[in-house]
Amino acid sequence: MEALGRHILVEYYDCESSSLNNVEHIEESMLSAVKTAKATIISHSFHKFSPYGVSGVVVIAESHVSIHTWPEYNYAAVDIFTCGDTIDPWLIQEQLKEAYGSQNVSSMEMKRGLFKVPKGETLPFKPSVNTIKQD
Amino acid sequence: MEALGRHILVEYYDCESSSLNNVEHIEESMLSAVKTAKATIISHSFHKFSPYGVSGVVVIAESHVSIHTWPEYNYAAVDIFTCGDTIDPWLIQEQLKEAYGSQNVSSMEMKRGLFKVPKGETLPFKPSVNTIKQD
Repeated sequence: MEALGRHILVEYYDCESSSLNNVEHIEESMLSAVKTAKATIISHSFHKFSPYGVSGVVVIAESHVSIHTWPEYNYAAVDIFTCGDTIDPWLIQEQLKEAYGSQNVSSMEMKRGLFKVPKGETLPFKPSVNTIKQD
Repeated sequence: MEALGRHILVEYYDCESSSLNNVEHIEESMLSAVKTAKATIISHSFHKFSPYGVSGVVVIAESHVSIHTWPEYNYAAVDIFTCGDTIDPWLIQEQLKEAYGSQNVSSMEMKRGLFKVPKGETLPFKPSVNTIKQD
């Protein structure tokens, strides 16, 4: 069986509360982490809730990275969904850990889109990102 | 232990290929499903890849719903992440199954953000959506 995607679910506990309530910091750290992993950014959207919390998503050609923060619990939930083998999702996980000062991280990697392929073959990656049409 | 969020990872196999390559259909079906579940839409973004595939995310006050499709494999990966108990994520899962004609669905529900709370108490839901500031 071969998988089309890798999905890392990250629980960042015991973070610095102030960094989780700062939408500019969240946006910068997410975009920076995605760039470090050499992912291709398609769109991004970040929102500050009142009085607490930030939600945001970066859609990348290789899938997406999302975040939801609960500063009042020093907690952030992050999903790093990638396809293809050109980028390393764990680089993003490590960089965000530093950005939010998490002292207690729990991560799980899931395989998404499992298909049987002939031995020795792999599933081709998503279409070329050179020809993306945005809607 | 109480959880801040529920996260349903859905694998839609054996879908109608054409519906997975139609960005307008994907966008309409995702927004419609989210509305049926009475979620509050904050932003949404959908992208068509060439020659195949669509990626999209709907950020909701209650977290997010994302989709990545591989029409060439008749497969779509959907994540339904919700917090609070005002919306039912399974309504979204069922409606999207119909929208893409999936004949083989695999779903898993994960709890996100687990905290110990005194017996009988619950974790308060995210802040009021009446006072959202968009960035």
